[in-house]
Amino acid sequence: MEIKKVKRSEDYSLWYNNLVKNADLAEHSAVKGCMVIKPYGYAIWEKMQAELDRRFKETGHQNAYFPLFVPKSLFEAEEKNAEGFAKECAVVTHYRLKTNPDDKGKLMVDPEAKLEEELIVRPTSEAIIWNTYRDWIQSYRDLPILINQWANVVRWEMRTRLFLRTAEFLWQEGHTAHATKEEAIEETIQMLNIYADFAENILAVPVVKGVKTENERFAGADDTYCIEGLMQDGKALQMGTSHFLGQNFAKAFNVKYLTKENKQEYVWATSWGVSTRLMGALIMCHSDDDGLVLPPKLAPIQVVIIPIARKDDEKALVLDKVNELAKQLKEKGISVKVDSRDNLTPGYKYAEWELKGVPVRMAIGPRDLQNETIEIARRDTKEKQIVSLHGVDDTVNKLLLQIQDNLYAQALQYRNSHTWEVNTWDEFLDAIENKTGFVSAHWDGTGETEEKIKELTKATIRCIPMANKEETGTCILTGKPSNKRALFAKAY
Amino acid sequence: MEIKKVKRSEDYSLWYNNLVKNADLAEHSAVKGCMVIKPYGYAIWEKMQAELDRRFKETGHQNAYFPLFVPKSLFEAEEKNAEGFAKECAVVTHYRLKTNPDDKGKLMVDPEAKLEEELIVRPTSEAIIWNTYRDWIQSYRDLPILINQWANVVRWEMRTRLFLRTAEFLWQEGHTAHATKEEAIEETIQMLNIYADFAENILAVPVVKGVKTENERFAGADDTYCIEGLMQDGKALQMGTSHFLGQNFAKAFNVKYLTKENKQEYVWATSWGVSTRLMGALIMCHSDDDGLVLPPKLAPIQVVIIPIARKDDEKALVLDKVNELAKQLKEKGISVKVDSRDNLTPGYKYAEWELKGVPVRMAIGPRDLQNETIEIARRDTKEKQIVSLHGVDDTVNKLLLQIQDNLYAQALQYRNSHTWEVNTWDEFLDAIENKTGFVSAHWDGTGETEEKIKELTKATIRCIPMANKEETGTCILTGKPSNKRALFAKAY
Repeated sequence: MEIKKVKRSEDYSLWYNNLVKNADLAEHSAVKGCMVIKPYGYAIWEKMQAELDRRFKETGHQNAYFPLFVPKSLFEAEEKNAEGFAKECAVVTHYRLKTNPDDKGKLMVDPEAKLEEELIVRPTSEAIIWNTYRDWIQSYRDLPILINQWANVVRWEMRTRLFLRTAEFLWQEGHTAHATKEEAIEETIQMLNIYADFAENILAVPVVKGVKTENERFAGADDTYCIEGLMQDGKALQMGTSHFLGQNFAKAFNVKYLTKENKQEYVWATSWGVSTRLMGALIMCHSDDDGLVLPPKLAPIQVVIIPIARKDDEKALVLDKVNELAKQLKEKGISVKVDSRDNLTPGYKYAEWELKGVPVRMAIGPRDLQNETIEIARRDTKEKQIVSLHGVDDTVNKLLLQIQDNLYAQALQYRNSHTWEVNTWDEFLDAIENKTGFVSAHWDGTGETEEKIKELTKATIRCIPMANKEETGTCILTGKPSNKRALFAKAY
Repeated sequence: MEIKKVKRSEDYSLWYNNLVKNADLAEHSAVKGCMVIKPYGYAIWEKMQAELDRRFKETGHQNAYFPLFVPKSLFEAEEKNAEGFAKECAVVTHYRLKTNPDDKGKLMVDPEAKLEEELIVRPTSEAIIWNTYRDWIQSYRDLPILINQWANVVRWEMRTRLFLRTAEFLWQEGHTAHATKEEAIEETIQMLNIYADFAENILAVPVVKGVKTENERFAGADDTYCIEGLMQDGKALQMGTSHFLGQNFAKAFNVKYLTKENKQEYVWATSWGVSTRLMGALIMCHSDDDGLVLPPKLAPIQVVIIPIARKDDEKALVLDKVNELAKQLKEKGISVKVDSRDNLTPGYKYAEWELKGVPVRMAIGPRDLQNETIEIARRDTKEKQIVSLHGVDDTVNKLLLQIQDNLYAQALQYRNSHTWEVNTWDEFLDAIENKTGFVSAHWDGTGETEEKIKELTKATIRCIPMANKEETGTCILTGKPSNKRALFAKAY
């Protein structure tokens, strides 16, 4: 672990890449744009999955699984959706390899095994799912359908970054079907709220809930809702989206139901998803120049205990105490790692567990044994304290809660101090270019102006925040009237 | 739910297909050979996953995730493995679609977006994983690596059956790396034992543990161990495999480690997997002509309670009691469904929950309320009894355990009465053709004889059971000497 540390202030992007690699979260693979999620990174993702899955099930959703492949004819059925994803589709054209006659031992695609119809590796599953729902839905009694899928999807990307933008990524995608527009919109909002709750209470990342502009909408949606977080470099990250799909997919796949009044109506749809991109949010929102900082609720290891002793007789005594302590903490539901590796110095271990973001580090030596004390260090503030071994399990439990709260409070404080309300173009430019962060400004509501602002500043409209009230104002660029502020930022 | 029932004795295969469909487990999709796993089926798979995942983690394994795609050059590196899977590979050749100039609104593969190197959709992940392990392993300190992956894989199949053989399926694949041959073999056997434990104690399916013949070995393995179950039609089903891969992949991908003695050695490997095929085993081993029969440990709904009342005043009273009872059972950790649907008769509901394999059905009406009793019916034996409402939670808990045990005992009894030890060709033919089941017989150990027997009878060697002792005998076909019996059967 000879790691050359790059500070956030020097090169945020390089700092991020190094951190993902050095903390053993993920790495690039031999497949362009695809990542390997390493065990430590995957353990964090599993904790996210568990928290989300519980919330989905508590709100009546069930998991299911639909095919990886979408036949081209189904893929193109909903035109806007197809158009939106066409440029980034991995396409399966053949189903067999054969020995290369010119180079034995090598394989080649068997030209005789060409598929009659190409298969698209799903970039999202609306098409295959709505084609299936047609058979599942006859009458109002079959509605709602509330299904979620945990899956891998592929969107061919030329410029990739670990977790943030990869050709293959893992995600969950909810796909629901409803009898009425109102119910579908209610579902869309409900899931947005679940994402926000998860982001704030588990990831400890404060988010703005809002609606995307037409330009930024999911291809095939009538409305896209999102949660947007602010990273430490002042750039925004879209962390989850929930789409009201109207009757677009029902019409494309002819999914109708018989109402109580015996009429045939098209079904209303939603879809919603979050992905391994959340790992990027987690990393970029909390971590520091020494490495990852994990909120306790997502830390695979919440507490690491390091025995400190040089002489052999002391080692045994200290290790006994450490093991007893670990047992005591585990009984309280705390996940504990004892680091008793013999070939490494305490200092090396401290640095390694800091790099990996373990929220609480405990160190205990012979003198602590005599005093019945232990040293506790917090990863977030780096504060150390000597505490009594009596009741230390409660001390640690409280500390974990404090760290969780503190990470959220820090992130919220950062966001609040990097959210700027501006009313003129000059103020806007200054905020975007120099102050960085979220910029709340009036905009005339047209796609043209949105594009122009993006061209001039690289800032995009992250969303129209749901909390924003109607107010009269004038567009920062065109001076035309506006009745609501939009939230701008440079973004990932 | 107007279901024409086919009996097992009439057409086992049709019975299976109907059951999978009618019990809402899975269905065929628009993609040839790929299935949709429906919520009820997926809930059972999730319970299997949880049980397996716990066992993997308890034995020191961690989950990770590797890319869906394998570049062709990596795929072909381990020649035997590549040869074994080449004929069933889905191949991605392009990464973009474009609008079809001859038919606007339709898409076509963009010929300009041809990949330089084709990507294979993983049929198994040894190649991509061992290519990664090369960078992870330098010295003996990096070993063992104990990793599992939950993933989808694709093996192009022409003749598919839901769960048993599908082009895409879900599975877990363990991939471990070790310093010594002995440790790798130990791991291989450990995982086989975990699969056997899971099969017998959770699926309630007795299995034979054994070693595959060279013909039936995993492509690229030095030895393949397996668990084999016996289905109710007398056919065997391979339920899981654990492979000792020797140094084959280490050599193909040049993965060496520095020993304590400072020498460079190739690393030893194992891989092991079970898949959604286990759903097929579960269904075929226990179910009956009325539908699915689920072992309580895998039942998403363990108890269904059906209120029986006609008059409105009685309805309210009965429903109150039912809800109270459901709460009481849930507190004991039992998963309960109350079926209070108003538009269906009790008889209809009974049939539906029988079809879905719910282990325990409870029905309660106004007279029961007076008597403080309730009717309990077991799915496995169809026995009904009236029991006291007092302590009914304990009664149900005991019953669930009894049902779990009884399913295993029944399956074991069936297997024991369908395992034949034979010593002549005529006895062998009679056992395979007429008696059906497992046939234990001497075989001369050659691939030619194995092939010949398969041609003549369609029976294959399922494995050389690990429990079989050395004994002298003569091959049933060739009369040549043999020192161990092999286990034959017709198989899925």
